[in-house]
Amino acid sequence: MKKIEGTTINGKTTIQELVENMENFGFQATQLSKAASLIKKMKKEKATVFLAFTSNMVSSGLREIIAELVKKKLVDVLITSVGSIEEDVMKTKKDFYLGDFNADDLELRKKGINRIGNIFVSSECYEALEDTLQGFFKAIYDKQKASGKMISPRELCFELGKKIKDERSILHWATKNKIPIFCPAITDGALGLNLYFFKQKFPDFGIDVSGDMKELADITLNADKTGAIILGGGTAKHHTIGVNILREGLDYAVYVSTGTEYDGSLSGARPKEAVSWSKVGKKADHVFVEGDATIIFPLIASAIL
Amino acid sequence: MKKIEGTTINGKTTIQELVENMENFGFQATQLSKAASLIKKMKKEKATVFLAFTSNMVSSGLREIIAELVKKKLVDVLITSVGSIEEDVMKTKKDFYLGDFNADDLELRKKGINRIGNIFVSSECYEALEDTLQGFFKAIYDKQKASGKMISPRELCFELGKKIKDERSILHWATKNKIPIFCPAITDGALGLNLYFFKQKFPDFGIDVSGDMKELADITLNADKTGAIILGGGTAKHHTIGVNILREGLDYAVYVSTGTEYDGSLSGARPKEAVSWSKVGKKADHVFVEGDATIIFPLIASAIL
Amino acid sequence: MKKIEGTTINGKTTIQELVENMENFGFQATQLSKAASLIKKMKKEKATVFLAFTSNMVSSGLREIIAELVKKKLVDVLITSVGSIEEDVMKTKKDFYLGDFNADDLELRKKGINRIGNIFVSSECYEALEDTLQGFFKAIYDKQKASGKMISPRELCFELGKKIKDERSILHWATKNKIPIFCPAITDGALGLNLYFFKQKFPDFGIDVSGDMKELADITLNADKTGAIILGGGTAKHHTIGVNILREGLDYAVYVSTGTEYDGSLSGARPKEAVSWSKVGKKADHVFVEGDATIIFPLIASAIL
Amino acid sequence: MKKIEGTTINGKTTIQELVENMENFGFQATQLSKAASLIKKMKKEKATVFLAFTSNMVSSGLREIIAELVKKKLVDVLITSVGSIEEDVMKTKKDFYLGDFNADDLELRKKGINRIGNIFVSSECYEALEDTLQGFFKAIYDKQKASGKMISPRELCFELGKKIKDERSILHWATKNKIPIFCPAITDGALGLNLYFFKQKFPDFGIDVSGDMKELADITLNADKTGAIILGGGTAKHHTIGVNILREGLDYAVYVSTGTEYDGSLSGARPKEAVSWSKVGKKADHVFVEGDATIIFPLIASAIL
Repeated sequence: MKKIEGTTINGKTTIQELVENMENFGFQATQLSKAASLIKKMKKEKATVFLAFTSNMVSSGLREIIAELVKKKLVDVLITSVGSIEEDVMKTKKDFYLGDFNADDLELRKKGINRIGNIFVSSECYEALEDTLQGFFKAIYDKQKASGKMISPRELCFELGKKIKDERSILHWATKNKIPIFCPAITDGALGLNLYFFKQKFPDFGIDVSGDMKELADITLNADKTGAIILGGGTAKHHTIGVNILREGLDYAVYVSTGTEYDGSLSGARPKEAVSWSKVGKKADHVFVEGDATIIFPLIASAIL
Repeated sequence: MKKIEGTTINGKTTIQELVENMENFGFQATQLSKAASLIKKMKKEKATVFLAFTSNMVSSGLREIIAELVKKKLVDVLITSVGSIEEDVMKTKKDFYLGDFNADDLELRKKGINRIGNIFVSSECYEALEDTLQGFFKAIYDKQKASGKMISPRELCFELGKKIKDERSILHWATKNKIPIFCPAITDGALGLNLYFFKQKFPDFGIDVSGDMKELADITLNADKTGAIILGGGTAKHHTIGVNILREGLDYAVYVSTGTEYDGSLSGARPKEAVSWSKVGKKADHVFVEGDATIIFPLIASAIL
Repeated sequence: MKKIEGTTINGKTTIQELVENMENFGFQATQLSKAASLIKKMKKEKATVFLAFTSNMVSSGLREIIAELVKKKLVDVLITSVGSIEEDVMKTKKDFYLGDFNADDLELRKKGINRIGNIFVSSECYEALEDTLQGFFKAIYDKQKASGKMISPRELCFELGKKIKDERSILHWATKNKIPIFCPAITDGALGLNLYFFKQKFPDFGIDVSGDMKELADITLNADKTGAIILGGGTAKHHTIGVNILREGLDYAVYVSTGTEYDGSLSGARPKEAVSWSKVGKKADHVFVEGDATIIFPLIASAIL
Repeated sequence: MKKIEGTTINGKTTIQELVENMENFGFQATQLSKAASLIKKMKKEKATVFLAFTSNMVSSGLREIIAELVKKKLVDVLITSVGSIEEDVMKTKKDFYLGDFNADDLELRKKGINRIGNIFVSSECYEALEDTLQGFFKAIYDKQKASGKMISPRELCFELGKKIKDERSILHWATKNKIPIFCPAITDGALGLNLYFFKQKFPDFGIDVSGDMKELADITLNADKTGAIILGGGTAKHHTIGVNILREGLDYAVYVSTGTEYDGSLSGARPKEAVSWSKVGKKADHVFVEGDATIIFPLIASAIL
């Protein structure tokens, strides 16, 4: 067994050195260090890597770190909620700002500022998004009319990515590198409201959410091994582990979450529970790191960057 | 200001008496009591009441309490994740059992038992679901071929409800009482996997997820007042508060959640944050109760049952 | 195995009925119901019952519920932090008021209001406490000079209880019913600061914290069986389970806590972990209920009230 | 206002670079970065720095990081629970080992292993502690008999530190550098049980817990400015902020905790709440970082190491 022991830190200590040493710290430092090792192992074993994340990751500075992973083709599949798509687009046009958890929300509202924790998002960002989406929907709609086939959420993300030139954008690199983005709840956000407005003129425009199941299943079934890095919960997490039932579970799973286990929520469920479901494999390597991903993900991502 | 004080409890104390007295206890007891009062107020003010819930609520005994609210038409709109639909159907055929949070998940897997916290769900439940869904999809598919129009998630839930006779079922009463169920992430579950299998034979079968935006928007815009009871987070929560932006926010909001605020997650965000977004109204009454809904919801629901 | 199922609730449902039914709800409702049953069992088996609680329980309306348990001799030993002692005394003189979690703390400070979550405590309460304590310390000091023996925290609580006539007071009933109060961190609060002021005049006044170990050990060792109801964490929890090592662990343990397990904290540790330490017995019945005690404790205490 | 943006990370990125960049990430990454800056500021402003920590920090690899801060005189006062004292001593004699959160606790008990989260502590460690303490108590007792004065917890820690030669020990450096250790709950642990055994032979041996109030108050009152770094909750946290009431609050406060605010617990209370109490100053700089200290503390401590 390994001894518990701390380490010497100074101004020159690199993240990698610290993360390696953390294995011997105990508690979540150990979990974090194991997560970093497991990500390295996934890559070494040439697993198909799913990166699942909730939209607050894109609200935060993790957006650029995720974009870099996509740019460098270090992940193979992205699964996320629609807020991620929206905010990645918005950030190509307007910046988000550092705010305060305890801000006066009525005051913010008067100023046209929307709060996400301690991040402030101006309503202008949403107006910019609207500008993009209305034209974009029209182009997609025209294609639908021509082909008779509704677009799927993945195809929608792919098309949207073509319009983005920002090198800090996840969508940009995903499209460029043909890394698919799955987004099972594509209407659950500003995109949905924009769709509602668009459909007032073009009521027969639609999105076939069933259209992505085959591609997602194929990727999963054709992979030699699969690994997942899952930041947060919700549909992004569930969709990722759910599809892996088809192959009797992920070979590698790293969860980073603040969710709690004792309410039976999917978001708080540990990899251990997923083993019973064949979402995570019988002999899979898996690690759960409890905490905020804005701190944990840069540390574990450094293992492969 | 109200004084903090406890109360005398004995074997005959009713839930209602306790919940009323809890207002003076402080901490979450106060929040719970306020939530119960706010739900009473929503009903008194004849608000259109949205009930949002994650699927673990349906895994638990809250299923029957939700079904009763739907049966008695005490709520007007349901918004949930697909697991709720699946499990409500499964429970009409097979029981779920009380298990253990610390069960050996490998052992469970061998026995064909899937774990949700301390609830055990046999794989037979999923087989029963498959039986239902494959035939059901075929019928829907035939209609699609006839009408040329894809079904929306809400319509799908409505049709599925017709097939259920169980008086303890949410779907049964929702269909019977014409209470719409919105489910923006309809493929994110066993239903999605079943869809994948079905589409191997019928690849042109689809679900138009954009099809529900108008109905949901209309309900929201036509309401005199809107109120929401939100159990848990994820798409159910987000969709509920998101559509209320169209009317500058909910008039009443009760959140019950274990989510944490400090990670910027939607699931953990308080009603206060939603005010900045116009998801909750400027002058809205709102309460956040932190804790597990299996304890809290029966207590607050008793206010209107 | 038990089936998961909800129950019918209406305006006349009693707490006891609900709590019994909750066993079949799953998640924390099940835990809560099991906790209530286990408390009933402790009493039936005539176990010596330790009630451990942090001071915020006394800040809240749980004070009166705890006092009632002490009045009715339903618990045998109290272990708590010094804030509980202080606030029980203050509440005999001044009321605490219901406030707001999001109050402006600078404003409160200007008004002489101290905030505990959503409970407001006027600085006048602390002045009233000071009045009581300075005279009380003098009397104790005189006894010390006479006997040559320093008082222990338990003795101090016992003497303080003699001065209190309030029938809603924990100290009052503890003294009256000779139920000992152990308080290992007796100086960690306003009492400590008052002691500091008092000792400026009487520097040789002291409190021998080692003085209670024998009595606590004797109670534990002489008990036929021991059970504990532990609300919250910290020294109250640790002292309770720690002394039970002497008899190879509690026979019954109910923990109610919001603490998290994954930081290795004592406050978040589950009864399972305590088994490894012989703090909880090998064959002990134990339940952990995750959540705020202001909601949970009234429900589980109703089982024996 | 600052823009939210991520950063490029690679194998050579230092902790300091990452921590600085984290300010712009949002959520807890921002809090962590601000905490590091605030600790730097405390030192620059020559504040008297209180380091408060719970005993699980010493169980973990943070022990060596804390010891280094004490060795380098970067902190001025230590406030902790008795488990820290015990485990620092034990670690001079025996190692702790990396275990597993999900270990079988009954099996561990049979093997004489005590579990703290994912850290395993052999019962031999406690036997080694007993050997040290029984002799140590005898020496202290002899002094008490000679002087007629009971020892205080701080003096006890100071004397104990003299016996330790381990350069990785907190006690060793604290004694060497005359950095006082306050431990208001000195009997709440194995030390208390050892005291119980010792007092069976020497019943008049005692520890005067009131003996440290003056020294702690003097340090606080004589400081030009005071700052606190508080890891975890309980008495360590409360004692630190409580004594600062004497000077109308800390000038700087960094809290790292997993505690939740909504149960009114001291352990979960934010610095904001402490402002109402004059525990944190009206104009104080303060930061709360939510998460496990084994990850967060090495990152923020690197700012001054």
